[in-house]
Amino acid sequence: MRDRVAIGIDLGGTNLKIALVDQEGRLLDKQSTPVAPDQPPDAVVQEMVQAGNALLAAQSLSRSALVGVGIGAPGPLSPSKGRIIRSVNLSSWVDVPIREKLSDAFGCSATLDNDGNAAAFGEFWAGDGSKTEDLVMLTLGTGIGGGVVLAGKVFHGHFENGAELGHTIVLPGGLPCPCGQRGCLEQYASASAVARRVLAAIESGEPSTLGEHLLRSGIITAQEVAQAAQHDDSVCRRIWDEACLYLATACVNIQHTFNPGRIVLGGGLSEAGAFLLDNVEEQFVDLRWGMHDDFPKITLAKLGYDAGVIGAAGLAWAAIADI
Amino acid sequence: MRDRVAIGIDLGGTNLKIALVDQEGRLLDKQSTPVAPDQPPDAVVQEMVQAGNALLAAQSLSRSALVGVGIGAPGPLSPSKGRIIRSVNLSSWVDVPIREKLSDAFGCSATLDNDGNAAAFGEFWAGDGSKTEDLVMLTLGTGIGGGVVLAGKVFHGHFENGAELGHTIVLPGGLPCPCGQRGCLEQYASASAVARRVLAAIESGEPSTLGEHLLRSGIITAQEVAQAAQHDDSVCRRIWDEACLYLATACVNIQHTFNPGRIVLGGGLSEAGAFLLDNVEEQFVDLRWGMHDDFPKITLAKLGYDAGVIGAAGLAWAAIADI
Repeated sequence: MRDRVAIGIDLGGTNLKIALVDQEGRLLDKQSTPVAPDQPPDAVVQEMVQAGNALLAAQSLSRSALVGVGIGAPGPLSPSKGRIIRSVNLSSWVDVPIREKLSDAFGCSATLDNDGNAAAFGEFWAGDGSKTEDLVMLTLGTGIGGGVVLAGKVFHGHFENGAELGHTIVLPGGLPCPCGQRGCLEQYASASAVARRVLAAIESGEPSTLGEHLLRSGIITAQEVAQAAQHDDSVCRRIWDEACLYLATACVNIQHTFNPGRIVLGGGLSEAGAFLLDNVEEQFVDLRWGMHDDFPKITLAKLGYDAGVIGAAGLAWAAIADI
Repeated sequence: MRDRVAIGIDLGGTNLKIALVDQEGRLLDKQSTPVAPDQPPDAVVQEMVQAGNALLAAQSLSRSALVGVGIGAPGPLSPSKGRIIRSVNLSSWVDVPIREKLSDAFGCSATLDNDGNAAAFGEFWAGDGSKTEDLVMLTLGTGIGGGVVLAGKVFHGHFENGAELGHTIVLPGGLPCPCGQRGCLEQYASASAVARRVLAAIESGEPSTLGEHLLRSGIITAQEVAQAAQHDDSVCRRIWDEACLYLATACVNIQHTFNPGRIVLGGGLSEAGAFLLDNVEEQFVDLRWGMHDDFPKITLAKLGYDAGVIGAAGLAWAAIADI
């Protein structure tokens, strides 16, 4: 039944991704559009509508085929009120009733959630996690987003700020985080943090094979760190191992809190594949307790960068039907 | 309506506590009985029945007044299967179908849960937390038990091992824990840990006002540490502040995971009252992020040591009625 679709939107800091997704979680088509930091909400919603119409037309579908729109965005936001409270990247977005705007613009119901939660729901619904009741996701990108699905539903918490797993403290008194805390997980294990820490090590005079590359290109990426670490660059190896140690520590703590069946690692850092997963798993086995045998399975995200749009569309589907 | 009651049982390591509790969460009467480490399950159940009958008789109530029995016990156990898997203190208790045994012995329905969860449910139901939807409890005793109530129900997790908050890691590579991990919260902030760390400091030659007391009595309690810390004993003050720092760290992480309306501190260490609470709150304010204003309220347990029996009875009530 591909005559009925939901639209999923992933509102990132620099661009928005929009996709058509059917009731089985299949992504039919998608499109990406840049978003300027000074674009006001109504202009961005207008772009969403244009992109959505183009996607529907390309599938020879009319508006009546659209069952709902789901959007995932960075917090702080309120899923229950359908409002984006503030946006770090879109300066004029303050207390925006985005759910109402989307509902009016598309003429259907709309759903808002945190981007980490949308990605987690995507992996739960359409990724490998689909057979597991409870799932926790860590999105290792610029920061670290968290998402928690309990008994098939996204978990929000009393203040709707739950599952901010990137800001759990893994080292008291550790590196300062822009959030105001110290020692947050995302200061050690986000893709940006891994690159930034290698950069700082090189600038402080530590010898690394990436030193010359840095002089040429001016930047270092987490992918380059992963490659150099695999080729025994000692600085990259140390910082990579530390990232995996803190991820393993976070997995122990997730085990003792949400106690899910599965922990999914996604985002830029997870592109390193087995080089990330094996290291985290090994350190998880070393760190965790020996009192029983029931541990969450740690896996890589199956949907890659599409987890967010697929999950956002899934939340729109879930709002109208059992999926 | 005190003609209908539930029995709550708190099965501790060295004694069992049993109480009659009405539908409003009022404790009508209670009794405590020692349990020997070698007592087999059936003998202990027999003692529970005798104590329960005596409590009913003292209230001039017959067995027909009994709506159910709830029991809280240390893990590992399975609430859904009603089985205690193992007991650290009762050596012959292996895979005991305690729910069935209690149901048969008392002739009514029975409910099993983790002792930390039972205490959390007690505070939620009959303590100050009763108006808050989500509540997380830390019981600071020999170890640290955790309990989580979400939307009025005890949270268990996929493997039923959730909310083992005493074993979340607050310092990677920190003090070894009998559970097999290092740096667990309970190695820094349980009542036993606080006393043990002061003892170790004194034995290593650090000067403390408790040194002479130790020579006389051979032991140090957390209560004595709290008192000495309030009188500016520098060793006790340092270890007390560290306990509060790690509790504040745990509160930050609870805020970013379960995001509850309230965090309740109970157990032996909480007898220090405001001297504990004010310190934890101050450090929580220092540590936490500044991105929004919605923080869990941290409070002391209202039910004291009775939270476990009242909560266990509450779980029995909840199994048969909306409470």
